[in-house]
Order: sequence, then structure tokens, then C-alpha cells
Amino acid sequence: MEVVRDAPIDCPIGVLTGPNFAHEVAKGLPAAAVVASVDADLREMVLARLGTPGFRLYGNDDPIGAQLGGAAKNVIAIAAGAVMGAGLGENARAALVTRGLRELCRLAVALGGRAETVMGLSGLGDLLLTCTGPASRNFSLGYALGQGEGLASILASRSAVTEGVSTAVALVARAGEVELPICRAVAALLAGSKTLDQAIIDLLSRPQRDE
Amino acid sequence: MEVVRDAPIDCPIGVLTGPNFAHEVAKGLPAAAVVASVDADLREMVLARLGTPGFRLYGNDDPIGAQLGGAAKNVIAIAAGAVMGAGLGENARAALVTRGLRELCRLAVALGGRAETVMGLSGLGDLLLTCTGPASRNFSLGYALGQGEGLASILASRSAVTEGVSTAVALVARAGEVELPICRAVAALLAGSKTLDQAIIDLLSRPQRDE
Repeated sequence: MEVVRDAPIDCPIGVLTGPNFAHEVAKGLPAAAVVASVDADLREMVLARLGTPGFRLYGNDDPIGAQLGGAAKNVIAIAAGAVMGAGLGENARAALVTRGLRELCRLAVALGGRAETVMGLSGLGDLLLTCTGPASRNFSLGYALGQGEGLASILASRSAVTEGVSTAVALVARAGEVELPICRAVAALLAGSKTLDQAIIDLLSRPQRDE
Repeated sequence: MEVVRDAPIDCPIGVLTGPNFAHEVAKGLPAAAVVASVDADLREMVLARLGTPGFRLYGNDDPIGAQLGGAAKNVIAIAAGAVMGAGLGENARAALVTRGLRELCRLAVALGGRAETVMGLSGLGDLLLTCTGPASRNFSLGYALGQGEGLASILASRSAVTEGVSTAVALVARAGEVELPICRAVAALLAGSKTLDQAIIDLLSRPQRDE
């Protein structure tokens, strides 16, 4: 939306995002998504024109949180893939995704959005799609990293863009002092400044704390 | 904890819960869990004695939310299984689990707990384990329902307890006026008062709303 806002257009803008594999939507299978905008008229108009019983739309006045959830989930998906690729198991993945979402909530609040948005269809919903199956490009990139393959070799073998790689860098650059151990570990892993083993040790040796 | 509190014992009590497949913990793979108690000394003691780098414990002073998350997630897992068994796809499952967690948050608040707890390791973390694979008894029961098998026949074929079946009834009984469309649909499905097709139509034809 920052990019669009800089464009020479003059109309209300918003975000449509959520856990939607396009091929399922095309088949008419049921799905849900978020229409996020500070403009209530725009939200209502999109809900009325695009919403159907099979494509359920929910209004949300927090486009910052909705955008963050949709983008940053790719970073957590890389981490989840790395955990599974390294054979750490499903308990570890569940803990990592849960704690990763907590990081995204903190970041949303720091950037002026709301935690609840990230715990909705954008963010949590997205992660339920992308962190559980190799169908996700970000998850599969993480999986390959977890199995010991190098980033350059993984990227050379695929033509599609793996968004999380650039998102991780952008996200950490915007985060300031926000506590984001998992996102920072992914950025360091992708930058080659930390090995996977070191990243895992660092995450597990953090002090115990309240949830 | 209500049951324990009625027993003739006199000591602080708490809850240890989280997304932990026992066989992975036994192998020494990393996992995380919540120690929930209103007694800060008890929390600290359990964290100090049971926590290790590979078994990360997080303190939480909301045992109501922690108990609800650990129990009620089984009801959402049945719903997620039914969606997959009926062939509705991964978009539908992601939407259902996200909206199902929102229901559990509302219920936690109504019962005196906190939404954030249910969005943590107990609740969300649990759901990440149980809603994605047939390894979960609740998910697989829902899956069989989704494929058209009857509840009596499913229960007759298994010796292990499928907790969500009784939890669904108990949860709705405690819910009062709280808006729980997915949990109530599962209870009605299990009670035979609604068919799967009717439950799906009812959920999809609810009015559009804010997230």
C-alpha cells in the first residue's frame, strides 16, 4: 500500500489477503479472506461485490497488520521448513510457528497495526496453509536449507520467486529494537552469517520466560 | 483443575500443556510447553526443575485459558478433519481453524481467561499439531465423518478415547450465549441433529462481518 500510495492516483485503497490457494478458489471450493482498509465504504463495497457464500470476506480496518501478516508469514514458513528439513520434528515446528506468530504480533503493534489482525486470516490463516506442506515455495526452500543445501544452489534450481528470502531482510531492517529471534535467525541464515546448527542452538538457549 | 481443586489436597496447582507428541519428547527432540498457574512460586519452580534447552517451558498465569486451549482444540480438530474428509480443500481448513481459534478466544474471555493464552502454545500450538495430520485421533474421526461414515461405526472401530467427542458437548453446555458457530456445528453433527451438508451450508451462509 505504501507503493500504491506513492502512485499518481486518487482513490481509496485497501488490501485483499488471506489463506487462498488460487487453484482451489478456481475450482469453487470454499475459502475466506480479509478486506483491509481504513475506508469503511470501500470495505463494504468490496464485501458486497466480491463476497459469496463460498468466498467469505471479512472486513478489517487494519491494513498494516493485514499486509504484515501476508508478507511476514513467508519468513516463518522458511523457518518451519528448516525445522522439518533438519528432522527436528512436529513438536518443534508447532512451537516455532506459535512463537513466530507472537513475533509478528509484536512487529505489527510496533508498526502501528494490531496483534489480532496477524492472528486472523492474514498471518495465522496463511501460516496454516504454508507451514504444513511442501506445496509452499517458502516452506520447501526452508526444508532444503534444513537438509544442508546451500541457498545459492536452491535459488538456482527454481524459477519462481521465493518471497520470504527478500522479506526476511526487509522485515529485520524495519524492526528496530523489536524482539524477533526467529525472524532474525532466518535473516542471518539466509545471509550466511549463521549456520543452521548455530541458529538452532541460539534459539533453544534463550532464557526461559513468560509466554 | 476444577476436579483437582475438589480433592482433599492442600497445595498450589497448575497445568502443564502444549503441542507435544510424547514419542518426539521421548526421543529428545526439541519441544515447548506452557506452565500455567496463578501461583508464581509454583511456575518458577516447575520452570527451573523441568525446563531444559530442548524442552522449553513458558510461564503463564492464566490456567483457565491454558486448560481451555488444550481441551477445546480437539473440537476444532474434528471440524478440520471433516472439512478435509469432505474434500473441501486446504483453503477451507485454514479458514475454519483460524475462525475456530477466534471462537476459543471468545470462550476463554467469557470463562475468565485470556485470548492471548489460546493464541499461544496451548490452543494454537496444539492445533498446528492436530489439525494437519491424520496422526490425531480427533482429526481422523472428523475425516471419517467428512467421508460419510457414521459416528457409531467410527467409535466402534477404535479403542482409544477421542476426547473431542465429549468435549464438544461439555463446551457448548458451558458456553451460554457465546458465539461459537463452528463448535456448535460439531456438537450438532456428533449428536446427529444436523447433517454434514447442512452444517457446511449453515456455516457458509452466515452474514458477512468484520474479522
